[in-house]
Amino acid sequence: MKKIAILGSTGSIGTQTLEVVRENGDIEVISLAAGSNTELLEQQVREFHPQVVCVYEEEKAREFRERLKDVAVRIVTGMDGLIETACVPEAEIVVTAVVGMIGIRPTIAAIEAGKDIALANKETLVTAGHLIIPLAREKGIRILPVDSEHSAIFQSLQGNAGNRIQKILLTASGGPFRGKREEDLLNVKVEDALKHPNWSMGRKITIDSSTMVNKGLEVIEAKWLFDVEIDDIQVVVQPQSVIHSMVEYEDGSVIAQLGTPDMKLPIQYALYYPQRRYLPGDRLDFWSLTHLDFEKPDMDTFYGLSLAYEAGRTGGSLPTVFNAANELAVAMFLNREITYLEIVEIIEDCMRAHHNIKSPSLEQILTAEQETYERIRSRR
Amino acid sequence: MKKIAILGSTGSIGTQTLEVVRENGDIEVISLAAGSNTELLEQQVREFHPQVVCVYEEEKAREFRERLKDVAVRIVTGMDGLIETACVPEAEIVVTAVVGMIGIRPTIAAIEAGKDIALANKETLVTAGHLIIPLAREKGIRILPVDSEHSAIFQSLQGNAGNRIQKILLTASGGPFRGKREEDLLNVKVEDALKHPNWSMGRKITIDSSTMVNKGLEVIEAKWLFDVEIDDIQVVVQPQSVIHSMVEYEDGSVIAQLGTPDMKLPIQYALYYPQRRYLPGDRLDFWSLTHLDFEKPDMDTFYGLSLAYEAGRTGGSLPTVFNAANELAVAMFLNREITYLEIVEIIEDCMRAHHNIKSPSLEQILTAEQETYERIRSRR
Repeated sequence: MKKIAILGSTGSIGTQTLEVVRENGDIEVISLAAGSNTELLEQQVREFHPQVVCVYEEEKAREFRERLKDVAVRIVTGMDGLIETACVPEAEIVVTAVVGMIGIRPTIAAIEAGKDIALANKETLVTAGHLIIPLAREKGIRILPVDSEHSAIFQSLQGNAGNRIQKILLTASGGPFRGKREEDLLNVKVEDALKHPNWSMGRKITIDSSTMVNKGLEVIEAKWLFDVEIDDIQVVVQPQSVIHSMVEYEDGSVIAQLGTPDMKLPIQYALYYPQRRYLPGDRLDFWSLTHLDFEKPDMDTFYGLSLAYEAGRTGGSLPTVFNAANELAVAMFLNREITYLEIVEIIEDCMRAHHNIKSPSLEQILTAEQETYERIRSRR
Repeated sequence: MKKIAILGSTGSIGTQTLEVVRENGDIEVISLAAGSNTELLEQQVREFHPQVVCVYEEEKAREFRERLKDVAVRIVTGMDGLIETACVPEAEIVVTAVVGMIGIRPTIAAIEAGKDIALANKETLVTAGHLIIPLAREKGIRILPVDSEHSAIFQSLQGNAGNRIQKILLTASGGPFRGKREEDLLNVKVEDALKHPNWSMGRKITIDSSTMVNKGLEVIEAKWLFDVEIDDIQVVVQPQSVIHSMVEYEDGSVIAQLGTPDMKLPIQYALYYPQRRYLPGDRLDFWSLTHLDFEKPDMDTFYGLSLAYEAGRTGGSLPTVFNAANELAVAMFLNREITYLEIVEIIEDCMRAHHNIKSPSLEQILTAEQETYERIRSRR
């Protein structure tokens, strides 16, 4: 039995991870953590019997303890609780599926405790890749990407140990506003931005896809995961989302991973790596596919992607600012406090105002995050 | 220094193999064999200094000995000479790039002598896969595919040891007559059939591409190389020849290899496997590619492909009949003795008339070949 911890078990990746666990029947859930959706978390606890469960919000945790009096489970809360959840001794793999920079500390703690990481929390590498990657190497643990694109790259790298990567071709659907110009995006409503053409995801990441900021975060993440220069990562718009990403090698050979848009595939691949298992669901049918399209991304209209390259190229604390500014700006947009185009304006303002720290400590990263939030709040 | 033998050094694959040798500078050519193009062979001998060289035609070999009096090289001839060329002790890898069933005996001899095979001679596995594959396994040697499609499949299988192949997606350009109906092909001339849209290849294989018999031979070859059922191999027409083939796994994930149409890539991959090296040449540019198309092959118009599936499914000596009938019929077509559509008619007639031998010996395979030739000759 493989033994796993899931941080963010009630989110999109978390629930799909539990579906994979349910369908396979040979994975033991050691611990779970969620933010505030205690109803779903309760069901998960009753079905999967973890030893430890974290409810991040303290008030919710108190309620939860009352509600689960009949269950033999240790209920923890807050950042200490989240770290404990990631470090339960029996867990071999920690699925980091929380959204936001909240994932950094528990990820570091899990790596220090010698656990493999199934990484679904982009912010960890975007903001602290320079700390995480050397630590993972030192501890000899594996970081297994769960994101569809990074899993595709990871799959395309198999059997190529020692072969130099010439280029990573990171595919993008282009989101719901592909082909639009800036002037078309003046009056975008929350509902418009939440319509992703191919993937069913959480709200924050769906907005990020529409601005292509998500792709920018993936570029920075890929740089750390696969040890390449940021400018050796090329974003290719592939609107059907059939090619999930590709790797070009020195000899010109390109290896690609393709599939239907089902997050359970990369989740399952990460959990059983290098083994593949049967996965129920549709298969690609090339006889009826007719065609796949490819485009160059419009880096002017989707200027957030340009800013991501700039942040990734500069490094230091700038990616943290990029990410934190986006995080709060998207929340404000979802809350109808700002317009759609202001999301990227806010990111740029924050980046321009930031004094970069070359190799920030964890404390400095978290400080840069807070400062960015404050800058945005004082801006209004 | 890697040490290689090349059978068929003056053909398309042979000359490109020598280009790869020339460009890399760290491969020693131990032996060369050619059929009758002694002028080119002489240049090759003077440039690459092999120990042994075979001129298959005896008369040509005599002339050649005269011409190369000043060179310290052992010149051999005929089938014995070809086998000796494949078995020179120093050679580690034998590139089998001869066309036709003439390749079977030297391939078997090379495997028995413990040499890895860089396989470019389709007929070997098509007709004698049931003998070759168990022998290779017994001797612990590697069969490294050089054909572009099979190399793509091989590359897509890396890092997946133990993962079950669900399906092989063998891509086809569709050739110059893609989209045509049988009635459009009544008056096809040799010149029309020799116009391949993407690849530059020998004459025989170019005709085979136009009839899709080549794809049929590749299907049968893939069955042996990758140990799959013939009906788990799906031919997908991909007219741009950018995707060179794909593998679908149990989890629905599809791994593909893509590239420009350059045979030096699979040749170099086979020679240095698993290492990749820089290869000069164009690279795929996904920003300007615009699109890739996919079609179901038209198995009625290109009935030779249906016949190949039938031959591969039935097995025994039937694939030999399929291949031999095609070999002679194509020669007759190139010689303007028969019409284009008669190529496949002849294949079908020979298959229908053949009494299949379930697990033929090498002698029985060669007898089936001769009987097929005789049947066609007596037909006229």
